[in-house]
Amino acid sequence: MKAACYIEKERIEIKDREPVAPAADEVRVKVSYCGICGTDMHIYHGAMDKRLTPPQSIGHEASGVVDTVGSDVTHLKPGQKVVVMPLDWCGECPSCRDGLTHICHKLKFLGIDTEGAFQNYWTLPARAVLPVPDDMDLKTAALIEPLAVALHDLRRGAVKRGDFVAVIGGGPIGALIALAAKERGARVVVSELNEHRLAMFAEFGIETLNPSRDDVVAAVKSMTGGRGADVVFEVSAHPAGLETAVKLPCNRGKIVVVGIFSQPPQISLFDFFWRELELYGARVYEKEDYLEAIDLACKKVLPLDKLISAVYPLDKLVDGIQKLQEGGKVMKVLIDCQEENN
Amino acid sequence: MKAACYIEKERIEIKDREPVAPAADEVRVKVSYCGICGTDMHIYHGAMDKRLTPPQSIGHEASGVVDTVGSDVTHLKPGQKVVVMPLDWCGECPSCRDGLTHICHKLKFLGIDTEGAFQNYWTLPARAVLPVPDDMDLKTAALIEPLAVALHDLRRGAVKRGDFVAVIGGGPIGALIALAAKERGARVVVSELNEHRLAMFAEFGIETLNPSRDDVVAAVKSMTGGRGADVVFEVSAHPAGLETAVKLPCNRGKIVVVGIFSQPPQISLFDFFWRELELYGARVYEKEDYLEAIDLACKKVLPLDKLISAVYPLDKLVDGIQKLQEGGKVMKVLIDCQEENN
Repeated sequence: MKAACYIEKERIEIKDREPVAPAADEVRVKVSYCGICGTDMHIYHGAMDKRLTPPQSIGHEASGVVDTVGSDVTHLKPGQKVVVMPLDWCGECPSCRDGLTHICHKLKFLGIDTEGAFQNYWTLPARAVLPVPDDMDLKTAALIEPLAVALHDLRRGAVKRGDFVAVIGGGPIGALIALAAKERGARVVVSELNEHRLAMFAEFGIETLNPSRDDVVAAVKSMTGGRGADVVFEVSAHPAGLETAVKLPCNRGKIVVVGIFSQPPQISLFDFFWRELELYGARVYEKEDYLEAIDLACKKVLPLDKLISAVYPLDKLVDGIQKLQEGGKVMKVLIDCQEENN
Repeated sequence: MKAACYIEKERIEIKDREPVAPAADEVRVKVSYCGICGTDMHIYHGAMDKRLTPPQSIGHEASGVVDTVGSDVTHLKPGQKVVVMPLDWCGECPSCRDGLTHICHKLKFLGIDTEGAFQNYWTLPARAVLPVPDDMDLKTAALIEPLAVALHDLRRGAVKRGDFVAVIGGGPIGALIALAAKERGARVVVSELNEHRLAMFAEFGIETLNPSRDDVVAAVKSMTGGRGADVVFEVSAHPAGLETAVKLPCNRGKIVVVGIFSQPPQISLFDFFWRELELYGARVYEKEDYLEAIDLACKKVLPLDKLISAVYPLDKLVDGIQKLQEGGKVMKVLIDCQEENN
């Protein structure tokens, strides 16, 4: 079989490998599609070398079909359509004992700390493999992982019907947050620079602001009758986005930090004092977010398919990464990992 | 009567004034004691000139006795012992409509935005004046305002029995947070540099750390079996205190920012991402905090009297401010505002 393996900074190679036989508590999934995540781009640029073991396949936003199950696996059978929740937790640390297995002190993220999905067959812990209905489109299913991220973010921000929600940064995660919040009955505005993405949001019936021409703080104030937003999602990972995010919430409003700030930014804690703001860190998802994401994808109420800008074969993974980096008319890029297409 | 008035930066003068007759919805309080707050020290140093109208009396941590009530006031009568919740809200802004009158968009803080308590008689809105039992000691009662701050902070952090609570900074507010959290059944550790204060905490049965000799992060990790603190109160308003505060919480632990950062500090949002931390701004108190503070002071379960380091007469207000600035063997300083003692 073929596997797209990270070798070193800016070098990914297609390797011929033997599919791995599953252990008793593992499953081998025949991968269908896997989205390219921002994390994969960081890996490609050598920013996460400490966590990888090259040559190593990466990728974690996967859909597929069960190929073989280990002897102890009872909840899955060959031929079943599945998605992967790419987490492997220890079950013993203080966080796991607190029920927070998704932020386990020793968490392994599948496709970063282990082999990933950019290969024809992926062998992984069975508890990470979740069934989806037979009639689910497997391209759409590859968006369940980022949708679970978005739903986890919404849960961290306790978004509810009638809330005013502002999303700073309208990439794939920002888009899924906006769409899911709108579906939940919130009024949503997205602040984004990319005109292609702004047009997509308009098509989805979501209000937009462009910080290059709009005063985002004044606009949100005006849209909310001076009150401010109930929940703000900072998805840009940019200090300017964070600065705006802190100005938008209403008194006792929430900011969910979704973008990853590798360096400590400055933040106006005076605003937190003056308006009793709240800030919530958010990381990946819990199983309930995943089950909700599967359910929401099944209901077909979100235009998930419209977020897919392009699909590349496995040996064009680097082209897909470059497509995303170029920006412009792109939202989500999938890799077709199916043996018969590669 | 006498009033200690702020004139300009580092100049406070005792003025002779006429007591002000209360309007229909006002009360004139014969002030007994008023604590010196950090805010009063900022005012003295000219840092809050934009909010003051000199010559203006300041002070807001007051106890006293009702002298005269306005014609519409029914909940108070002359001779009654009282404390003051020094807030005046508009009742009409989005925050007041949301029930958050204490962070009203147009909030006036009595003793900053209006005349204050460092005078023999203080005329102020009746709704800011709350009765206390006849047998309450009026020196202790002057600590009800900072105790309400502490209880509000605890409520923001949702501190509950069995929690591990870390307090960074053991001044009067840090001490009241620690004492109230301990009373609530939390295990509490205070990080503080001042040896006098450390000795006080030891006397109160509260564990302490001194960041000049202890590795606070390692110590809290060890004290919690590697888990981390449930709730951390950052009361130092110092970037180093904030940096420590971010390292202490358990996964999904809370940081309540109590110290006021007038300049935006750097903060490791990566820790917020990695451990799903939560940060809560806190400002003053709500009426329920005040009522709880009165109740707690009445029960005499906290050693409030031991926090009072010195009592100065009104014309020695500047000496009191300097005493606090010198640090060393000092916690809370009160001003005796009673006409017969001045």
